[in-house]
Amino acid sequence: MKEYFIQNAKDFIGEEVTLKGWAYNVRKSGKIWFLMLRDGTGIMQCVVTKFDADEDSFNIKDSITQESSVIVTGEVKEEPRSPGGYEMLAKKVELVSIAEEYPISLKEHGIDYLMDKRHLWLRSKRQHAIMRIRHTIIKSIRDFFDDRDFTLIDTPIFQQAATEGTATLFETDYFGEPAYLTQSGQLYGEAGAAAFGKIYCFGPTFRAEKSKTRRHLTEFWMVEPEMAYYDLDMNMDLAEAFVQYIVSQVLEHRRPELETLERDISILEGIQTPFPRISYTDAVKILQKNGVDFKWGDDFGGADETIISSQFKSPVMVHRYPAAIKAFYMKRDPENEEQVLALDMLAPEGYGEIIGGSQREDDIDLLIQRIKADGATEEDYAWYLDLRRYGSFPHSGFGLGLERVVTWLCGLKHIRETAPFPRTMTRLNP
Amino acid sequence: MKEYFIQNAKDFIGEEVTLKGWAYNVRKSGKIWFLMLRDGTGIMQCVVTKFDADEDSFNIKDSITQESSVIVTGEVKEEPRSPGGYEMLAKKVELVSIAEEYPISLKEHGIDYLMDKRHLWLRSKRQHAIMRIRHTIIKSIRDFFDDRDFTLIDTPIFQQAATEGTATLFETDYFGEPAYLTQSGQLYGEAGAAAFGKIYCFGPTFRAEKSKTRRHLTEFWMVEPEMAYYDLDMNMDLAEAFVQYIVSQVLEHRRPELETLERDISILEGIQTPFPRISYTDAVKILQKNGVDFKWGDDFGGADETIISSQFKSPVMVHRYPAAIKAFYMKRDPENEEQVLALDMLAPEGYGEIIGGSQREDDIDLLIQRIKADGATEEDYAWYLDLRRYGSFPHSGFGLGLERVVTWLCGLKHIRETAPFPRTMTRLNP
Repeated sequence: MKEYFIQNAKDFIGEEVTLKGWAYNVRKSGKIWFLMLRDGTGIMQCVVTKFDADEDSFNIKDSITQESSVIVTGEVKEEPRSPGGYEMLAKKVELVSIAEEYPISLKEHGIDYLMDKRHLWLRSKRQHAIMRIRHTIIKSIRDFFDDRDFTLIDTPIFQQAATEGTATLFETDYFGEPAYLTQSGQLYGEAGAAAFGKIYCFGPTFRAEKSKTRRHLTEFWMVEPEMAYYDLDMNMDLAEAFVQYIVSQVLEHRRPELETLERDISILEGIQTPFPRISYTDAVKILQKNGVDFKWGDDFGGADETIISSQFKSPVMVHRYPAAIKAFYMKRDPENEEQVLALDMLAPEGYGEIIGGSQREDDIDLLIQRIKADGATEEDYAWYLDLRRYGSFPHSGFGLGLERVVTWLCGLKHIRETAPFPRTMTRLNP
Repeated sequence: MKEYFIQNAKDFIGEEVTLKGWAYNVRKSGKIWFLMLRDGTGIMQCVVTKFDADEDSFNIKDSITQESSVIVTGEVKEEPRSPGGYEMLAKKVELVSIAEEYPISLKEHGIDYLMDKRHLWLRSKRQHAIMRIRHTIIKSIRDFFDDRDFTLIDTPIFQQAATEGTATLFETDYFGEPAYLTQSGQLYGEAGAAAFGKIYCFGPTFRAEKSKTRRHLTEFWMVEPEMAYYDLDMNMDLAEAFVQYIVSQVLEHRRPELETLERDISILEGIQTPFPRISYTDAVKILQKNGVDFKWGDDFGGADETIISSQFKSPVMVHRYPAAIKAFYMKRDPENEEQVLALDMLAPEGYGEIIGGSQREDDIDLLIQRIKADGATEEDYAWYLDLRRYGSFPHSGFGLGLERVVTWLCGLKHIRETAPFPRTMTRLNP
């Protein structure tokens, strides 16, 4: 049997079809009632009259409730006055299941209440728009790398060592020994780049962040490309083309959803390559010029990032950071020992860091020095150091946090709406 | 600067290009030496002579070792006698880094040794073939659902409750309360189907399997579609079309890799829809006819699955299992209370179960009964039961284990080679 979905209504105008879904809303008016039918792909106004529908179907108006599941058969026609532009003249209405009084009404609810009802809140127009944009961003991410002959290398969730510091690790008992949930696939990605040249990984990563901020989830998806024989400039070229591609795909495929979210689309349309590139040192000068008491060597906070990014319409790439505030695996700047060849990309409008990356240290002696300075041992990174023993090579990569990008492109105030079932310090349910 | 990769050699025949990679092998023969250059996308034979190359380049033969990183510039030409069909006449060879004696030689190594060196073993032709096939399967999975208007709903890794029994849970301390790593996204997927109609999730799942078998990883990727208003037959139709699509994509895009693995391609080409569908009861008869001492009500073991699947050239779907051996959320067969509307798909050639699925119980009273029979409470499944309170609807779905499918299509004896960095009971490193 052929399936019909509301989002494809234009393909079955004039046909009698069956739609299956839920009652989004019901309005009654004497000899006629209107069922706003939600099928997960869209909403269709179904008009039910005694004239066109049989009596049982018509009388369903007396028992149907919001979110009751229902199957409607009838002819679909164009109707510019109807939301969505189409309307169904119902011939038959079947009530599959009557819903109890639905706990989410059109009135305002508090965010904690809605998050407790996340499994139901996902049925709303706003959450639909966000999840569809999220899906498009994910597809764009994979298409971008697949089209450029990157090999997908899924890096492991269970790891023996910390990539990004030990303060934010989730630990589990792995048959008697401790294992940690991945904070980043990068070290494994470097092994992948040595094997396949250009690789990416894209999966969930974990940080036991004790801070309750609007930018942090404990569980989030990150895509991390790693490229053999790429230096910092090539890394920035790729990051720029990548983000521009994501923006263009969302603008091309998800304009109605952006409108639902009342996103200022013109701001997204204003994003253009080449993105500005400034050194950390120049970024510090911007802060000082704006009256911030900031010393070279400090790390940027959220407020600092907002000031820096507000100077530009497109995302800005800040490069060459002080070595002391960056990870051990970043390559020293040959022109200045105090710096590493790092890059961060800051989204416009104060949305903060969406990309962090670097050229990697390929000199084994310098790498061991940094590992020891961090209080770790060569043994802790034995296999990672092998990548420098057996054909060390210049290489670079970066990580992009999916939910940060969803927050930015959707224009959300808080990251918690960007995941179907978000996990924060205080939220593990539903 | 334009990048050149060996896999695209046919696009730059006659051009002078620069290739960057590693020395896969070196053969020396007086006034000429041959460098098999590996760049991650393929292998190119580079011919180095005193006549075409400068003296420094020629003399690199005296210091270059296996897996040393190297950059070679020269003209590429067709050469049928050369592996891959192309050859480079080197003009300049630059040694980037000399590799220490490479621990993996062409001689045979034991599997434990190779797994300890997994970060290097990935550079081999065999592992390249497997990872590329894995990548193609993943892309096929996503394309299949994206092209059919499924919405991607990433389900959470951190969960409060067990989906598939409590014996195989990994636990972590989540800011003072216990959290479990997901065994399946299904329950969340059902909430997704109520919101979006047709959804899928695709991410890592975890089982603390204490068994050391050739079919189990502790960490594996699973894709789980869930469809509103689908019954068991529609579920089987979709599962069949899905697996046939994956097989066809691998045959279309990864034939050279299948040949590298010496896979019998004709067996894969023989797979055809419709796949056979037999009831559990009929499957039991097959076992009994083959002399197996098997009672109706028992669960199939690996050996049983092999006997059943060996009757067919295509994957076989076994449906309607005894309720007692299946999960609480499966819908009772209206024609036989002892059975549930489950389906398993068994791959041919003894590769075992690749899909498990069912129509879901949509009657809240029967569902609560089964939850209590399992020793759990309504509170444990409070939000899940909401899906039956607010517009309950017939729905179905299944899960396909990625690494099982990679094992099958690659024709591997053991699942451990199907993940870049596999995790088993005894393997957490590298």
